[in-house]
Amino acid sequence: MQEFQLLERVFAHNVSLPACVVVPPGDDMAALRLPPQTSTILVAADSAVEGRHTPVGVDAYILGRKAVLRNLSDVAAMANARPFATLACAMIPVGTEEARVWRLFEGLRETALQWNAPLVGGDMTSVSAESALSVAVTILATPTDSSAALATRSSAREGDGVYVTGVLGGAWDRVTGLGRHLDFTPRLNVAQALFAQLGSQLHAMIDVSDGLMQDLGHIAKRSAHTLEIELARVPIENGWAPMDAIAHGEDYELAFTATGEVPAQLAGVPITRIGTVRAGDGIVQLFDGARTVTVSRAGWEHGT
Amino acid sequence: MQEFQLLERVFAHNVSLPACVVVPPGDDMAALRLPPQTSTILVAADSAVEGRHTPVGVDAYILGRKAVLRNLSDVAAMANARPFATLACAMIPVGTEEARVWRLFEGLRETALQWNAPLVGGDMTSVSAESALSVAVTILATPTDSSAALATRSSAREGDGVYVTGVLGGAWDRVTGLGRHLDFTPRLNVAQALFAQLGSQLHAMIDVSDGLMQDLGHIAKRSAHTLEIELARVPIENGWAPMDAIAHGEDYELAFTATGEVPAQLAGVPITRIGTVRAGDGIVQLFDGARTVTVSRAGWEHGT
Repeated sequence: MQEFQLLERVFAHNVSLPACVVVPPGDDMAALRLPPQTSTILVAADSAVEGRHTPVGVDAYILGRKAVLRNLSDVAAMANARPFATLACAMIPVGTEEARVWRLFEGLRETALQWNAPLVGGDMTSVSAESALSVAVTILATPTDSSAALATRSSAREGDGVYVTGVLGGAWDRVTGLGRHLDFTPRLNVAQALFAQLGSQLHAMIDVSDGLMQDLGHIAKRSAHTLEIELARVPIENGWAPMDAIAHGEDYELAFTATGEVPAQLAGVPITRIGTVRAGDGIVQLFDGARTVTVSRAGWEHGT
Repeated sequence: MQEFQLLERVFAHNVSLPACVVVPPGDDMAALRLPPQTSTILVAADSAVEGRHTPVGVDAYILGRKAVLRNLSDVAAMANARPFATLACAMIPVGTEEARVWRLFEGLRETALQWNAPLVGGDMTSVSAESALSVAVTILATPTDSSAALATRSSAREGDGVYVTGVLGGAWDRVTGLGRHLDFTPRLNVAQALFAQLGSQLHAMIDVSDGLMQDLGHIAKRSAHTLEIELARVPIENGWAPMDAIAHGEDYELAFTATGEVPAQLAGVPITRIGTVRAGDGIVQLFDGARTVTVSRAGWEHGT
């Protein structure tokens, strides 16, 4: 495979690159003009690996798409953020058909462009034939409002409600590995609408990718507060056991804390209050109807 | 291995993160305050794979370091650019010792910080035990002078001299795979000093990573000019055949075109004029003392 020529062909498809791309892909670096008055940029990086984030043998387009969607979910979780540009480094096992590499990059390029974060940099590197096909994606974003705060994990305040978007559980089929985790809608619209409505009343936010309890644990720890959660309030997919659904990952919903009037639905997505932020020491306490379970970094500790 | 905890430990080493890092690693995204009056940012991404960019079994610190150095070389090649921040996604084969992963991230973190581009984002993903250890790095930079041009590959002008920094060839030992490609000095200081001295007289630039001829080919093609190179002028490492040295990669020197008085040395690195930019159609013509060889995308074509 001619790596350079293939990448050039991928980027040649970018006929509609936004005007902000002042040096397009193909140089040593791409250059991007920032929106006026931008004083801060946001960056994150996350990967997708065949056999781990998708079933083996999947259309590589789906792997590329998921890699970008995972990063967009991180942008959503800052609330005051708009995606801006994407870069991708692919690891291509020797012997991979060129058509498959092409599909990977089309998944990356089309998904990124669709969410206004054009693919402006890329690299592909051959790895041994036994290696997994994988792609590492970096995403850049700018604040929607430079003068306002970002919804960091450390921003929860005592008395905040704890909320979650959508419905948890069922994002992937345990047998086939398929499911909506392969083509989810990153909650950018919901996050931006929440930020627009709540402003400084929106505090901490995280995307639910590793399971609700573990992700809430990050907010609890970084905010140094206790999150009290009522299991009965958590919206759970039909057919899923609640304790499974909240320990599971790949939901790509948002969990957040806020004061004020939080709407019950935004951009077509339900928003549910599931608990309250209390003074405390960085743990999650889950009330399952009969008893309270403390969720710590070491796992689940059954309490009273 | 506890991926999350290990990453947290890596980032906890960042006691000296610059003040521009307003949301440090550990959130959904990192946030970076840009230098005042920044209207453009530069981005690039490049990987390093064990067994390809380093020998197998190398201290993983070296793999991490090289991944960052390769990206810094791209920053250097824009001339009007300062590195600003780094992100890294590592693919870790199942069964890799935690100490090895730690060394990888220390190589990434320390090298990035040393070049004022702190590691602000990272991710590690398990891949199958047979996969290569690899790391994809993204680097961000800002222009040194926002009102001045970047030294893109398409900026060569008729009449420019063609120059190269340092000495080509010998960056790696063909038997052991060792050599200075594992710990080179990216030519940031030289590039920035050239930009400071030459200003708008510095035109196209590229880093010499795939072999001088191939890299000059990118300038020729994108600038739509012919680059006439005299082989006898190219500074070649002792013991290397010139035609090998210019076809080889991994030099991480700079090639550039400029008018005006170009110094013979900057920041301790020799700078040598090796040719001239002529009107033409995007090819490199190499005069080897007896005849002229045309270097095209298809390879070497021996002419008259």
